[in-house]
Amino acid sequence: MKKIVKKNSYTAIGLMSGTSVDSIDASVVGVNLIGDHVSIKTMANITYPIPDCIRKEIFTLFKDSSGSLRRMAALNIRLGNLFAEAVLELLKNTGLKPEDIDVIGSHGQTVYHVAEPLELCGEEVRGTIQIGEASAIAQKSGIPVVSDFRTADVAAGGSGAPLVPFLDQILFKDMSKNTAAQNLGGIGNVTWIPKEGEGVVAFDTGPGNMIIDALVSIYTRGKLKYDKDGAIGKRGKVIDNLLNKWMEHPYLKKSPPKTTGREEFGGRFLEEELKDIKANADIIRTAEEFTAYSIADSYKRFLPEEPEVVIVTGGGVHNSVIMDSLKKHLPRSIVEKGEDYGIDSDFKEAIAFALMGLWTILGKINNVTAATGAEHEAVMGKVSYP
Amino acid sequence: MKKIVKKNSYTAIGLMSGTSVDSIDASVVGVNLIGDHVSIKTMANITYPIPDCIRKEIFTLFKDSSGSLRRMAALNIRLGNLFAEAVLELLKNTGLKPEDIDVIGSHGQTVYHVAEPLELCGEEVRGTIQIGEASAIAQKSGIPVVSDFRTADVAAGGSGAPLVPFLDQILFKDMSKNTAAQNLGGIGNVTWIPKEGEGVVAFDTGPGNMIIDALVSIYTRGKLKYDKDGAIGKRGKVIDNLLNKWMEHPYLKKSPPKTTGREEFGGRFLEEELKDIKANADIIRTAEEFTAYSIADSYKRFLPEEPEVVIVTGGGVHNSVIMDSLKKHLPRSIVEKGEDYGIDSDFKEAIAFALMGLWTILGKINNVTAATGAEHEAVMGKVSYP
Repeated sequence: MKKIVKKNSYTAIGLMSGTSVDSIDASVVGVNLIGDHVSIKTMANITYPIPDCIRKEIFTLFKDSSGSLRRMAALNIRLGNLFAEAVLELLKNTGLKPEDIDVIGSHGQTVYHVAEPLELCGEEVRGTIQIGEASAIAQKSGIPVVSDFRTADVAAGGSGAPLVPFLDQILFKDMSKNTAAQNLGGIGNVTWIPKEGEGVVAFDTGPGNMIIDALVSIYTRGKLKYDKDGAIGKRGKVIDNLLNKWMEHPYLKKSPPKTTGREEFGGRFLEEELKDIKANADIIRTAEEFTAYSIADSYKRFLPEEPEVVIVTGGGVHNSVIMDSLKKHLPRSIVEKGEDYGIDSDFKEAIAFALMGLWTILGKINNVTAATGAEHEAVMGKVSYP
Repeated sequence: MKKIVKKNSYTAIGLMSGTSVDSIDASVVGVNLIGDHVSIKTMANITYPIPDCIRKEIFTLFKDSSGSLRRMAALNIRLGNLFAEAVLELLKNTGLKPEDIDVIGSHGQTVYHVAEPLELCGEEVRGTIQIGEASAIAQKSGIPVVSDFRTADVAAGGSGAPLVPFLDQILFKDMSKNTAAQNLGGIGNVTWIPKEGEGVVAFDTGPGNMIIDALVSIYTRGKLKYDKDGAIGKRGKVIDNLLNKWMEHPYLKKSPPKTTGREEFGGRFLEEELKDIKANADIIRTAEEFTAYSIADSYKRFLPEEPEVVIVTGGGVHNSVIMDSLKKHLPRSIVEKGEDYGIDSDFKEAIAFALMGLWTILGKINNVTAATGAEHEAVMGKVSYP
């Protein structure tokens, strides 16, 4: 066993592939631990492309059709090799050597998430599957890898999501303002950090970019994968009837802790919605409004107070239609971007998993039970050695 | 990170659930390490039943039909909880406390194994999936758990099987006789340890009890799950035509390293064979002969010399029809049982994973590349902390 020498300063890599399966986000961060105080400095980020062939295989896997286990078994290794390439590229770009890195925290690629407990042979259980074999990454990079974070929280009776509140709590606990850290990935999620620092609330707010991205892809016949700076949405108008109907989605009214995903706002949602209407700029604009409105609505329903500051991260931060709509719906909050606090919006999740992986090898608790609803704290993650 | 203090003596638990999915085998072993010498003492074994409901769910999963990912995600947690129960039962029976145990090595339940490399987006990859969430076991037992051994060997370009030669090599390297360690689980597998100690060969010989068990279950309409002491087989006669046809199975002629499983000698094999004939004592006798004959035939084809000693372990050791047939086909070998060497035949695999898990937390190589065909050595397994 590689002995971890306890020290004050560590270097960790985080790897993430989100619901859109465009690319692997890889970040390398320096972490200083002095007593209770944690400071994080991003050293470098890269976006490593996921080849179309692999992306298609993963989307086929999402369908959970016959032959999924065979496909998943092989894709797990193939994708692990791709994650390893991303690490090697990051090392090359930065001039860092494997021995400079203490640990890699790898989220992997979610291919299934059972958000609601189901009865199975006398027990209520959830479940979650991430692929991208960690031992492939460890062997090819020569660095210990921590993976499989969500399953540990699920085993502890939690939803296995959201996990990023772990980072939010560390980053924003000294703000002395009621703060909402809002991420806009495929799904939207918020962490509420009250000015007292204690009493974190976190949940998935609903759709992030998932519906918008899918509509843009249909509308442009695959030419565009997302609405760059809201350019398409700006040309459209909100269809009020549709927005109001979408806002009736039962997920939005459910009390936290709660979590959602592709199962609720992915393919099936769109298939249903596009039965009678065609993708166009108005519908894309409506989807953007839906994301912003559902976020603001969830704050009113489920946060103890209106946030003084909302710090937005994730890909959606670059979509000014969403950002403007958020400001409109949250008139009493200051809406800022992660960048204003030194966090690259696009790499927040990768940074979170770097820190989470470091916590695992240090034997420290890294689930936020208030966010996931887990029955007990846990050291999430499994360690693979090179 | 729980620091492993290097010492000479460890206590480890091994957990295994095989292709028949009857029960979880759990063993606790004491391991002494003095220089290169390893001695293993089994302290206790238990067989923890797998409830019918869970067994059925796993068999449904084997079909790899639509909805498998959802089923697998939830079963992974449910089965992890069951493995945890087995550990608690073992501790209760022995009076051992969690802090007495250094590590649990858990094989889990294989639900898919891609034995032959397939081309996937420009790379040749294999794949393997074991379930029975290790973090559930770690959290409920309070003991670090090592899981997911096979994927690491697959990531290293190997078949991920067989893994038990790791134990055979350690147990029999000082025999000073050409030794074949033959296991008779669902599948048969052999490890050849030459009298010089170096030059191990290992491969799956073909069917073990898998075909016999399935036939017995059909024949007795589910009343019996295996042919106890060969009682049914003894009443039957070998059907030479059928045996000769089965012996033509292409797997048996393939050169090692090679590995097989349910995909080749499971449901589909039987469906094909039982199209025209009904399960009866003659067919069961023929399946028993097939197991023994295919083993002896594989020794002649693929071992450098005829073994002086054959040490048989696994459930098949209790079937005297198989054992007598093996002796008949190997007239120049002494055929013995694991028990003659202090190894409980029924728990060899569990013991192997206890030792493999210990090797993982000690950072020691635990794959046998000559057996799996891996391109390089690896520290297999992922560590989950309580």
